[in-house]
Amino acid sequence: MNTSEKTLAALRQHLHETALLESTMALLEWDEHTGMPDRAGDYRSEQLMLLSGFVHQRKTDPRIGEWLDELSTSDLSADPYSPVGALIRCVRRDYDRNVRLPESLIKHLAKATSLGQQVWVKAKRDNDYAAFQPSLHEIISLRREEASLLASDGEPLYDALLDQYEEGAKSKDVASVFEKLRDALIPWVRNAQETAQQAGPSSVEGVFDIEAQRTFSRWVAKKIGFDFERGRLDETVHPFCTTLGPHDHRILTRYSDSSFSTGLYGVLHEAGHGMYEQGLEPDWYGTPVATAASLGVHESQSRLWENSVGLSRPFWDWCMPEARKLFPSLEAVAIDRWVRDLNRVQCSLIRIEADEVTYNMHILIRFELEMGLIARDLNVADLPEAWSDKYQNYLGIRPPNDALGVLQDVHWSAGLIGYFPTYTLGNIYAAQLYEAADRELGGVGRLVAKGEFAPLLAWLREKVHRFGRRYPPMELIEKATGNAFSSDALIRHLRTKLA
Amino acid sequence: MNTSEKTLAALRQHLHETALLESTMALLEWDEHTGMPDRAGDYRSEQLMLLSGFVHQRKTDPRIGEWLDELSTSDLSADPYSPVGALIRCVRRDYDRNVRLPESLIKHLAKATSLGQQVWVKAKRDNDYAAFQPSLHEIISLRREEASLLASDGEPLYDALLDQYEEGAKSKDVASVFEKLRDALIPWVRNAQETAQQAGPSSVEGVFDIEAQRTFSRWVAKKIGFDFERGRLDETVHPFCTTLGPHDHRILTRYSDSSFSTGLYGVLHEAGHGMYEQGLEPDWYGTPVATAASLGVHESQSRLWENSVGLSRPFWDWCMPEARKLFPSLEAVAIDRWVRDLNRVQCSLIRIEADEVTYNMHILIRFELEMGLIARDLNVADLPEAWSDKYQNYLGIRPPNDALGVLQDVHWSAGLIGYFPTYTLGNIYAAQLYEAADRELGGVGRLVAKGEFAPLLAWLREKVHRFGRRYPPMELIEKATGNAFSSDALIRHLRTKLA
Repeated sequence: MNTSEKTLAALRQHLHETALLESTMALLEWDEHTGMPDRAGDYRSEQLMLLSGFVHQRKTDPRIGEWLDELSTSDLSADPYSPVGALIRCVRRDYDRNVRLPESLIKHLAKATSLGQQVWVKAKRDNDYAAFQPSLHEIISLRREEASLLASDGEPLYDALLDQYEEGAKSKDVASVFEKLRDALIPWVRNAQETAQQAGPSSVEGVFDIEAQRTFSRWVAKKIGFDFERGRLDETVHPFCTTLGPHDHRILTRYSDSSFSTGLYGVLHEAGHGMYEQGLEPDWYGTPVATAASLGVHESQSRLWENSVGLSRPFWDWCMPEARKLFPSLEAVAIDRWVRDLNRVQCSLIRIEADEVTYNMHILIRFELEMGLIARDLNVADLPEAWSDKYQNYLGIRPPNDALGVLQDVHWSAGLIGYFPTYTLGNIYAAQLYEAADRELGGVGRLVAKGEFAPLLAWLREKVHRFGRRYPPMELIEKATGNAFSSDALIRHLRTKLA
Repeated sequence: MNTSEKTLAALRQHLHETALLESTMALLEWDEHTGMPDRAGDYRSEQLMLLSGFVHQRKTDPRIGEWLDELSTSDLSADPYSPVGALIRCVRRDYDRNVRLPESLIKHLAKATSLGQQVWVKAKRDNDYAAFQPSLHEIISLRREEASLLASDGEPLYDALLDQYEEGAKSKDVASVFEKLRDALIPWVRNAQETAQQAGPSSVEGVFDIEAQRTFSRWVAKKIGFDFERGRLDETVHPFCTTLGPHDHRILTRYSDSSFSTGLYGVLHEAGHGMYEQGLEPDWYGTPVATAASLGVHESQSRLWENSVGLSRPFWDWCMPEARKLFPSLEAVAIDRWVRDLNRVQCSLIRIEADEVTYNMHILIRFELEMGLIARDLNVADLPEAWSDKYQNYLGIRPPNDALGVLQDVHWSAGLIGYFPTYTLGNIYAAQLYEAADRELGGVGRLVAKGEFAPLLAWLREKVHRFGRRYPPMELIEKATGNAFSSDALIRHLRTKLA
């Protein structure tokens, strides 16, 4: 090994040990959400706090800066898209960010968001926005302060926040693509609302045996390609996906005995996330080369399996016979009607209950509002009114109170600003990817109808998964699909969902 | 705070953070044995290795020695049985041990035992003692070396090993108490063997629905006092109990659909361990004050619930009605016969399948053999012959091969020498404790028959659990029962098991 190679090896060893600790934290959190005894919570927090201190120390270790300085002049960093070149570029990006933020600000933010979430829970329960307002005000100030330390000259503060979740994304570009989507959706949503009012009861609502749902969901997850030798499926209150090691990916769902969608579509969604993680390069685990490209790209993988595949007619042509074995009541439901009911479009106040079409509207509203808050075009005091006005204008419904309006999501109370847009970015990427795969594989629906999922998964592995963070997300999507970032594919897809 | 109090606070904070890491390791191990994906093992080992390095560093931190030196002259250490005094005494004991062993020996032992277990698995499968002999030879040499670094002048090397699992126990005393037990057992065992040959099929063997066993075992564990708000019950291949925090105690069992005993008695055994841990003082978690007194005392708690309570007639008078609801085939089995079949005495070659009476004979044989190995009165090459002779002499049966003989247990391959006697020490303590509780509570059987377990658990909490390691095990038992360590109570108890 020459000097640069030795430096690279030292850096990689450092990242490797940091990843061992972070993966351990992921297990502590997974266990907390699956079956930790009720009274074990305080001690668990202490364990997490101790380890997160170790991790923070490691991530701001000045040796990282020295190693990077050495490597920046070496041949190893010549190609910023090669595994090693990308590793150096991304570690530099993360390290610079970590050292640029003073510990006092990080602690202040941690305290404000921890408290903020507690206050939010109570405020939501009591429908009392005024009680939450001071917390939100403080959180926004702190995140503005953070953004001002990170933003380059002349860059909008919001972009510095967005960039943490979606590398390289600019709010100006995102806003213009989102506006096009919004303008396409508004008339459809109005129209769908009228149609929905005439629809009868949905076949998706009813009584569905939980044990049968478990069997069916696990069978589907396995068939689409989630690898159970390298993962598991458990149950929790708020479904998520987490990675505990290069060969340890865990997905979690919850089942409802009165709605078929909750369990299965939760599993499809989380399995999409899980298969992405399973498609990263295990040998590079713990480095940016084997880390998801962005939250938006992550969401594109869950949405592609959940919506583009799982809500399609060919998917049900394939799996309805199996479903009918487990749920005899489905014998009486025609596939046509079942798929139509699964895809029903209906305006609602609550984001997490929204259908595929209106879902994006909930996101666009939050994106517009949080940009306003960070830019100080919108005061925290005026947020509930602004929220309600946008729901009125875009979805044609007005929340009767703040609990069903501005207080519904945990995100802002947790300091997550710049995070919401990644949900719709995920939907946009998913539609772009699905169109490209459909073209290159000669029709994905044709394969799905036969239960052949391997070609689609292989295509995603080849075009997206294996690269990790080597390309910034929008470049990755353009490289994979041949098309620049645009909401056109999503608009085309959503149009097919309208009656 | 005065200076000593400040020093004590620093020591306790150090212990607290070490415990946070050790509890995290316990979770990594628990998860490994409950549901970790098949391919995640290598990475899990790396996580454990990293954390165990941190823990070792903390346990040999020279500041501990300095703090102890300061505290040894303070009033705080005046009473060696008070919480603080015992903490100082036990931490001194552990620290001295940790720093007396050179890191090279520890690493050598870790490597030899890790390899030893792999070699043992293969040797057992192939019935090839010769393949295992070099590993065992090396492990014994290393543990002799360890013992010679720890033993005080003139002390037998074996005692230095035994002392690690059972503080203060002397092999001379243990051997004399064990011999008395052995001499009582030999004629009974011979006699039982003849009776067993005349017995018909056992009602305990048959087909027992696993889901019903789960329900029944969980119900029993809850009724006897295992706190599910501070613990959980899961399944694994080799049952165990582990503690993950002051309010997080996890027990594991396995169920067999052809034997009723495996599942339920596994749960009773592990719940006994778990309730001991739940009875330690949560505020002193991570210190010797809230650590089990010894392996023998730990085993006494599991055996007391499993054997003294669970195999008794009053226990089945109480729970048979509930069992019959879940296992309709028990309607046809009289309680008399059921309890007799559960308590059947029969000589067998395999320790873990042995009944309550012959079980101890398996332990006594191992104890005598390993004392011989450490004293070099017995050569590793001659071990299989010596093993078989003892089985012949004490149990009247001779193993047909080494796989069913000397190769059956993992312990020696894992370096666990001095560990086996704690199983019979546990049985002895359990019998002593049960007799004392019976006397003081006016008949435990009377309470058990009514399903009233709280008085017995409260008695154990008061006499044993709450003290942790504040008293050495044999002192603790004498203090709790009013009687010195002796096998008399166990002999009286086992006599009742004979037909």
